[in-house]
Amino acid sequence: MNIIENLEWRYATKKFDPEKKVDEETIEKLKKAIQLSASSYGLQPYKILIIEDEALKKKLQPASWNQSQIVDCSHLFVFCSDATITDELTDDYVKLKAEVQSLDLADLQGYGDFVKKKLSEKPGHEKASWTTRQAYIALANLLVACAELKIDACPMEGFEPSQYDEILNLSKQGLKACALTTVGYRSENDTAQHQAKVRKPMEILFEKL
Amino acid sequence: MNIIENLEWRYATKKFDPEKKVDEETIEKLKKAIQLSASSYGLQPYKILIIEDEALKKKLQPASWNQSQIVDCSHLFVFCSDATITDELTDDYVKLKAEVQSLDLADLQGYGDFVKKKLSEKPGHEKASWTTRQAYIALANLLVACAELKIDACPMEGFEPSQYDEILNLSKQGLKACALTTVGYRSENDTAQHQAKVRKPMEILFEKL
Repeated sequence: MNIIENLEWRYATKKFDPEKKVDEETIEKLKKAIQLSASSYGLQPYKILIIEDEALKKKLQPASWNQSQIVDCSHLFVFCSDATITDELTDDYVKLKAEVQSLDLADLQGYGDFVKKKLSEKPGHEKASWTTRQAYIALANLLVACAELKIDACPMEGFEPSQYDEILNLSKQGLKACALTTVGYRSENDTAQHQAKVRKPMEILFEKL
Repeated sequence: MNIIENLEWRYATKKFDPEKKVDEETIEKLKKAIQLSASSYGLQPYKILIIEDEALKKKLQPASWNQSQIVDCSHLFVFCSDATITDELTDDYVKLKAEVQSLDLADLQGYGDFVKKKLSEKPGHEKASWTTRQAYIALANLLVACAELKIDACPMEGFEPSQYDEILNLSKQGLKACALTTVGYRSENDTAQHQAKVRKPMEILFEKL
């Protein structure tokens, strides 16, 4: 199967089979696909919570428009973007880059300063918007990885970020919940699996110049 | 090759071989992977310009921090998100859904009204932020598809959206350039291809609950 066949196979799962759980080895593969996501300047300004705890999922359901996927899924991935852009984000990246690529940290200082300057120039509300956009690349990678592994998934924006922040104590970590993905196995009774995919026609979506 | 191997293979290409062009059949596959992207409510609030014209790429280079990839790549993908969220966006989707799934348009009106209400509740600056986030899912799909097809790519935020808007006449179409991806084949001399990948460690990126 190639990516196009995999993307044709996947659909936003409306009803999961609550009895079927995704095994740990598969979850590790999904995590790896997320870890390898591209991000602006390579900064990965986000963190992903993976929730299996049934009581916690139940607690989050009312904060998620009461959608059944939250409790019936095997694992709930909560994408949390950095609420602000700190200098520490760049400093940590530069330090990691120096380690991984065996470079002299001092030689990377000019680059680090450039990145910090560029990020500091973003207007206030654009900062959280930027970190969230990066998290969406990671979310997309999760969806493609799920499809390849024949794991069902549903990306979800239908939840109350402020309630998630409170229940998961995110503000103290400088985080803000920006998107969810419920992961598991579809219920046989999920009628959504039989619906034809609705996508904008090529000639509307693209223009060649 | 699976998605993890493909993601390990890819890198943000700094120097393309200007002599090597991606063939049309491959471009069609990349477009298909983009078209199949998930989006909130399925609305796909964006359009993608695919630029091959050398003169136009040259004109865009100064608006792209003078980066060489803009002119040396084979194809420049410009992701343009909807600048505003119009009711037309939902109306078009509902109409398309009725057609594709052979449903009665009248039966979808309640759903359409719900979506419009939800979108209208978003604060002003959050609207463009939301359309842009959806475009980033499409951008991520492009990167994964390129990696699978062994096409090199570089996602880029380093450009001046207002200049792109002017050169490409985007405002009149209700669009705003939000991200680029240059696509082509790496130059043998691109040293970036030999650098080890820098990614946040698993234990920092994820938390299990």
